[in-house]
Amino acid sequence: MELKRTAKATETRMPHVLVLGAGFGGLSVVQGLRKASVRITVVDQRNHHLFQPLLYQVATAGLSPAEIAAPIRSIVGRMPRVTVMLGEVSGIDTARRLVQFRDTGIRQLPYDLLVVATGACHSYFGHDEWVVLAPGLKTVEDATFIRRRILLAFERAETETDPAEQARLLTFVIVGGGPTGVEMAGAISELARRILARDFRRIHPSLARIVLVEAGRRLLPAFAEDLSAYALRALKRLSVEIRLGAPVTSIEPDCVRLGEERLETRTAIWAAGVQASDAARWLGAEADRAGRVKVTDHLTLPAHPEIFVIGDTALVRDAAGRPVPGLAPAAKEQGRYVAHAIRSRLSGRQTQVFRYHHLGNLATIGRRSAVIELGQLRLTGLLAWLLWGAAHIFFLIGFRNRVVVIIDWLWSYLKFGGGARLITGIKHQQQ
Amino acid sequence: MELKRTAKATETRMPHVLVLGAGFGGLSVVQGLRKASVRITVVDQRNHHLFQPLLYQVATAGLSPAEIAAPIRSIVGRMPRVTVMLGEVSGIDTARRLVQFRDTGIRQLPYDLLVVATGACHSYFGHDEWVVLAPGLKTVEDATFIRRRILLAFERAETETDPAEQARLLTFVIVGGGPTGVEMAGAISELARRILARDFRRIHPSLARIVLVEAGRRLLPAFAEDLSAYALRALKRLSVEIRLGAPVTSIEPDCVRLGEERLETRTAIWAAGVQASDAARWLGAEADRAGRVKVTDHLTLPAHPEIFVIGDTALVRDAAGRPVPGLAPAAKEQGRYVAHAIRSRLSGRQTQVFRYHHLGNLATIGRRSAVIELGQLRLTGLLAWLLWGAAHIFFLIGFRNRVVVIIDWLWSYLKFGGGARLITGIKHQQQ
Repeated sequence: MELKRTAKATETRMPHVLVLGAGFGGLSVVQGLRKASVRITVVDQRNHHLFQPLLYQVATAGLSPAEIAAPIRSIVGRMPRVTVMLGEVSGIDTARRLVQFRDTGIRQLPYDLLVVATGACHSYFGHDEWVVLAPGLKTVEDATFIRRRILLAFERAETETDPAEQARLLTFVIVGGGPTGVEMAGAISELARRILARDFRRIHPSLARIVLVEAGRRLLPAFAEDLSAYALRALKRLSVEIRLGAPVTSIEPDCVRLGEERLETRTAIWAAGVQASDAARWLGAEADRAGRVKVTDHLTLPAHPEIFVIGDTALVRDAAGRPVPGLAPAAKEQGRYVAHAIRSRLSGRQTQVFRYHHLGNLATIGRRSAVIELGQLRLTGLLAWLLWGAAHIFFLIGFRNRVVVIIDWLWSYLKFGGGARLITGIKHQQQ
Repeated sequence: MELKRTAKATETRMPHVLVLGAGFGGLSVVQGLRKASVRITVVDQRNHHLFQPLLYQVATAGLSPAEIAAPIRSIVGRMPRVTVMLGEVSGIDTARRLVQFRDTGIRQLPYDLLVVATGACHSYFGHDEWVVLAPGLKTVEDATFIRRRILLAFERAETETDPAEQARLLTFVIVGGGPTGVEMAGAISELARRILARDFRRIHPSLARIVLVEAGRRLLPAFAEDLSAYALRALKRLSVEIRLGAPVTSIEPDCVRLGEERLETRTAIWAAGVQASDAARWLGAEADRAGRVKVTDHLTLPAHPEIFVIGDTALVRDAAGRPVPGLAPAAKEQGRYVAHAIRSRLSGRQTQVFRYHHLGNLATIGRRSAVIELGQLRLTGLLAWLLWGAAHIFFLIGFRNRVVVIIDWLWSYLKFGGGARLITGIKHQQQ
């Protein structure tokens, strides 16, 4: 008893590390500090960590939300000095070292060291009216919302008698030719052509029109040119129409306009711009146009060595001066660096500056093809797809999720099942 | 080509069976008619069939929605003469044999034979203001809504500083001592005491107070007396408080009143009354107080032998004159009878009257105990629980669901994982 009290007292004298955001960056910090002599509090607006790289599979009815999300409490459950809280940041008082929260039991929390890892949301480039017309894909709700829209479009087409409206319902426009756009286009095409094809009596889902729109001159601009070309060919094989150099000029309830061209559609999906969370405003810090906070090469605020900003919220540059991309491995790398830096400081050691090591790029195109770039190595096709699958399953947090995802994938691969094609989220009264 | 056209022409001359509702009753009709010379249309407001007996496990974070729901289209996908449509019934013109729908591409559908199997919803006995305060459990959205409320109550308790409010947040009141209420109370208790116990730092979820309230004098009134007594003892072992003979007099945002007694709580759950769907109104038919349509012993409307009403929507009596209970096996039995009756009519044979064979009652209490009544056989405890699990997995529609549910159950049984404890459904802006 006496011993326990002493341990408790020691603990309260430990520095308090406050981590905002339980994404890949935030959780890597916690993981890296699990044996350090610090108290840690993790605050997120959600109770779960989300494996965002597979979110498009929830949106296209391949996986269930619980298969790619795990409660934060269960991830950090065995670390005795970690506290998890639900909360939404409203401001940060850097002078008094306090973070303020909105509408929750905790009004504010003090910190000795602060890690801001609050991620990013969609950017509609000033067209906020597009938010409802072309939903983006960042949260579980976004994914089930898009899933509902896609499945309802087929349902409505089945009972629609006007051929023009039916065509509109069977047209899907994805805006943005990065990995998310490419993966969504491939997955919707397979959903329509393989899974839904035998479900309907009046319409032919396999005649659905899927259009991928990219403002730049090639798909997957972060990848090597030949991989972009491969992705283009692979998507065309899946009957996806592709418009390059075609910036969207307007999104309306019944169409997407690309300058003169008018794509008649009832379902537009946004996979284009990203905007960092409000961290720059909370911190009164300098940011770039996408809202990313400018940090030192120690990933701290210039005037505040006790405040780290990482992941999609930070503007970090690699050795060549290019911004580090908003990818899960990059956020994890930064999280590990911050944990290391904090441990070094506590033991009075110098820390090196952060150096980004780009692991690679990967994107999948439908169910048998992917493109992978790992340094000089470039892979395409089935081998790349298998490697992609293995990498994603390996990194899925929580053993249970891994087993279930493998079964789901195998099952839907063998049977083209599309097991999770539920339309949920509308509160119906019972008939 | 010529052959196909002839086949098509023959098909359009076949009688058209319109089935409203794709629950256990409706789908049994379709299943029983799969080889009959009829065209079938199934209309439901949802795109999925729901395995309602396991819905409480979604509400208590044990299973995911997709594990207990399957798209109607994929269940009937291989039956060539079956058409599936999404639609919400607004009225039935029995004279012209037309069903009207709200807000969809199909405005109305004609029928030769009509099967009304539209189920039931909650009844708050005239207290409609309780709907939002004490949600019931009928749909996937109901279940994820209750799951969110339960999990958020623990989250809020963790950050709450007022001890009275903390106690209120950690109190859960379940109204109704039938199978759903008993199963919910047991599952919430285990969620609190086994799964969440190690997740929190400031509160002790195992101190959560779970109160099961029943207006009658015993739990599980449809079961034998000794099984009611067993359920009571088993729930008490799980630290569930039980109030018998205690009708709810009022539900408020911060309490449930039982006459003089005031149970302070932020989470009330409704498992008490059930009200049949609006079928009696659509049909202009006679109904009992719970809205169940009075049918002949051929399960048809007295003046309309072409209209069948089955399942929770119908008032059917057994040989002893007691109403047939609103259970899945009863609805399936009625569905099979209707399919048989239709086939007999088509071939000019007489049909027997419907005779209900009560299979039995079962309810589970936590993770190692259940009560089962099969004719004279009565089982309790672990053996009953294993039988319950086997029966439910066996009847789960869709092989994939079965495998995944087994894994989920095994996993959470071995590890007390509670894999699906996600709080979803609130549209957040990104931090």
